[in-house]
Amino acid sequence: MQGVLTVISGFSGAGKGTIVKKLVEKYTDYNLSISMTSRKPREGEREGVDYFYTDRENFEKAIADGMLIEYNEYNGNYYGTPRKYVEDKLNSGSNVLLEIEVNGAKNIKRLFPDSVIIFITPPTADELEMRLRKRGTENEETIMKRMAISAKESAEIANYDYIVVNDDLYKCVEDIRHITESAMDQPHRMTEFITGLQNQLAKYAQ
Amino acid sequence: MQGVLTVISGFSGAGKGTIVKKLVEKYTDYNLSISMTSRKPREGEREGVDYFYTDRENFEKAIADGMLIEYNEYNGNYYGTPRKYVEDKLNSGSNVLLEIEVNGAKNIKRLFPDSVIIFITPPTADELEMRLRKRGTENEETIMKRMAISAKESAEIANYDYIVVNDDLYKCVEDIRHITESAMDQPHRMTEFITGLQNQLAKYAQ
Repeated sequence: MQGVLTVISGFSGAGKGTIVKKLVEKYTDYNLSISMTSRKPREGEREGVDYFYTDRENFEKAIADGMLIEYNEYNGNYYGTPRKYVEDKLNSGSNVLLEIEVNGAKNIKRLFPDSVIIFITPPTADELEMRLRKRGTENEETIMKRMAISAKESAEIANYDYIVVNDDLYKCVEDIRHITESAMDQPHRMTEFITGLQNQLAKYAQ
Repeated sequence: MQGVLTVISGFSGAGKGTIVKKLVEKYTDYNLSISMTSRKPREGEREGVDYFYTDRENFEKAIADGMLIEYNEYNGNYYGTPRKYVEDKLNSGSNVLLEIEVNGAKNIKRLFPDSVIIFITPPTADELEMRLRKRGTENEETIMKRMAISAKESAEIANYDYIVVNDDLYKCVEDIRHITESAMDQPHRMTEFITGLQNQLAKYAQ
């Protein structure tokens, strides 16, 4: 039985990173897929925890070798998802959590039609801009660039499976968890249980 | 925007009635669709609360007049869902909760492809039989007849959207609620929010 692949996506500044951190802390059945990137670590980020960091040349080699299930260039940097970890975990029946840029989500859905693709967004555009400023890691030009990218990305929202508004962090995390749990209750993930029950009931058939 | 139609179905004795009662008590946005039946009230059941009771002749008149979105004969009695209430509530954006026999669920899904059809089951067949006995309202023959019907119905489980095991009542009720809430987060139910956000972001486009 395949595990559930839950994909957390959405605008830069939506709070994806914090949400993912809370989810894996609270719900230990999520196996977090770490992305590979060619961008430099931000202050406080750690290799193998936030990302696997590499340079452009090695990233392009990974693409050529088919080691990524998706990759994407965002704001001048590569981001990609290593294939082996995701496939191994899902095939062994474990749940996987994946944080990904908007462009990559579409590819994941095509490769894993059974995955649950969730779009995270602040309640308003003003709130999104405010959060980017609060982060304090980017200059004005980069913030405006990110907002412009968000404007473009917003055309994709309706293609997601679910939209979760990140207004209250606790509620947002619980909402995502409930979406994953609901997916675990789908019949094609419960074939063993169904067959068992049908066999038990067979003796009552008249 | 259409509301969510959540359909609670499953074996006789699975605890559907208790679950529905708990759901509408706790979550007041569920509008409960009351079924019509030609069977006699069980002790403690009330007209317009548990069912609308009628006789076979009037039930057949309602069928002929197209007043039911589905009906079904189960164990010698008719059960059906009045059309107007469900359609009015959904069209006004309200959520509807509907308890239904297994045969009827398929019809509801065909008429309302967007509905969420949930199969409720005890964890085992033994547990199902025990619950039917505990109810104390049926004789041995009826219990065995109900178990035989369950054996037959079990072939349908895989066609449901979700399966919820009613082991712990509290957990079962919460699981169902989370399935409804997830459905409320689907993009086609949030078109107003999406359009609003896209409009706010448009000014940042470069």
